[in-house]
Amino acid sequence: MVDESSIACPTAFGQEPPPATARRDVLRVKEGSAARAEDVLADEVPVALVYNGISHAVMMATPLDLEDFALGFSLTEALIDHPGECYGIDIEAGPAGVAVQLEIASRAFVALKERRRSLAGRTGCGLCGVDSLDQVYRTLPQAPREAVLTGQAVRAALAALPGRQALNGLTGATHAAAWCDMTGHLAVVREDVGRHNALDKVAGALAREPSLRTGDGFVLVTSRVSVEMVQKAAMAGAVGIVGVSAPTAAAVRMAAGAGLVLVAFARGDRFTCYAGEARVVP
Amino acid sequence: MVDESSIACPTAFGQEPPPATARRDVLRVKEGSAARAEDVLADEVPVALVYNGISHAVMMATPLDLEDFALGFSLTEALIDHPGECYGIDIEAGPAGVAVQLEIASRAFVALKERRRSLAGRTGCGLCGVDSLDQVYRTLPQAPREAVLTGQAVRAALAALPGRQALNGLTGATHAAAWCDMTGHLAVVREDVGRHNALDKVAGALAREPSLRTGDGFVLVTSRVSVEMVQKAAMAGAVGIVGVSAPTAAAVRMAAGAGLVLVAFARGDRFTCYAGEARVVP
Repeated sequence: MVDESSIACPTAFGQEPPPATARRDVLRVKEGSAARAEDVLADEVPVALVYNGISHAVMMATPLDLEDFALGFSLTEALIDHPGECYGIDIEAGPAGVAVQLEIASRAFVALKERRRSLAGRTGCGLCGVDSLDQVYRTLPQAPREAVLTGQAVRAALAALPGRQALNGLTGATHAAAWCDMTGHLAVVREDVGRHNALDKVAGALAREPSLRTGDGFVLVTSRVSVEMVQKAAMAGAVGIVGVSAPTAAAVRMAAGAGLVLVAFARGDRFTCYAGEARVVP
Repeated sequence: MVDESSIACPTAFGQEPPPATARRDVLRVKEGSAARAEDVLADEVPVALVYNGISHAVMMATPLDLEDFALGFSLTEALIDHPGECYGIDIEAGPAGVAVQLEIASRAFVALKERRRSLAGRTGCGLCGVDSLDQVYRTLPQAPREAVLTGQAVRAALAALPGRQALNGLTGATHAAAWCDMTGHLAVVREDVGRHNALDKVAGALAREPSLRTGDGFVLVTSRVSVEMVQKAAMAGAVGIVGVSAPTAAAVRMAAGAGLVLVAFARGDRFTCYAGEARVVP
């Protein structure tokens, strides 16, 4: 007997945040032969960001470092101007997902309500807080102009990153983002099934623990470099963004406009500089 | 003289849709030595989906096959029930991006307005049309139960795909999704900087040209397999989804619930089956 329809809700958990991984019996096939095995998978859960009681966004995310995620998203999406405008963060896990309750300053909450009111319609998808083309590109802060990004720092950061990707080591399924000082030391590393989420977690971790940030720094991401990643790196105050995979042309134009160094295809002892090359030392 | 702030709008184009690629002078660094080169990058542009005059969503996308994208998104996100509910699609390129104007049936438009009205707030981010945790998981159609997915078909589809990824061949920056018949023949391939967009384009291409679909089929994607990808594959009526990279645990639970075969880490002559293994022949 086969059901005609299925309720696709794939998860249910109690008051504790759900685990970030799950074990699963799988069938491994190689050259036409199959063998049973057990595999460790990264999980993802719906995470709702709720500001002063109003649900603003729901995203699928890795249920780790959710305080960092919530604060970082609030900052890189300019929902708050500085960490002091967030008074508290509570994590509430329920059967349908995780609600992160943020208490934010009146000024920020009024601005958030105004921003939502000004949307032409109730938008349901895609870019954050955007439902018409005029709203896509935000004014970005200029990146610090004095610091120089060295090839040595890029190579050092690249070499150190895999050792800090615990979740990806288990699952092969998660992105990482790191904040690196200008010598390439990894000050903060965060992982998530979503590349935007990983970078937001890094921004949030820096905001929650300012001592992690010793002067200028750059962002290293295991993904491609698209416009949202450049926006978030600029909002976090980075000198540049380094990605292991390709950039988009729009991301390069945006980085150039914001004075951000953009390096991509960074692997081993190679990388390509797409923006800000005057401040790159090979 | 350095500007204090920059307007980050990275693009401006006229009435024609912008090109999907852009050339850029870059600095290639290898073992500490730098060389100038020219590189071809994938571009991405803001695309607004406008239903009967109301802007519903804006996404960054590759400006190719936008009619497929618009129709496919409308179907996989259940904004329309069948292709006949879309009466027309017009592409309008402007300085800020591309607006895709869809004319949809009154029934669908009333339902869309109702869905937007029922949102607790005006949501601006994350999952499509979702601003509270209760709305995350939709009821999915059950996948066809009779068809068998063979390893031979998976291997044939994998081998054929790179030859159909023209944009990725130039840029190394785009995902592909394909609809494959049960022998592994690629009936439709679409590319996009976004993996969700690539799959929506495939769904839309099938809906616009029903003769491409000869019986059952499965979806092949160059990305990881997350819940949104499983939802879209199920909505497109696929027997299964095959990804070249990792699945998430939530995606596996969802695929199992919807009767969808889920194969991941599919590369060369290897793959791993995570759901529906009773209908997989190695």
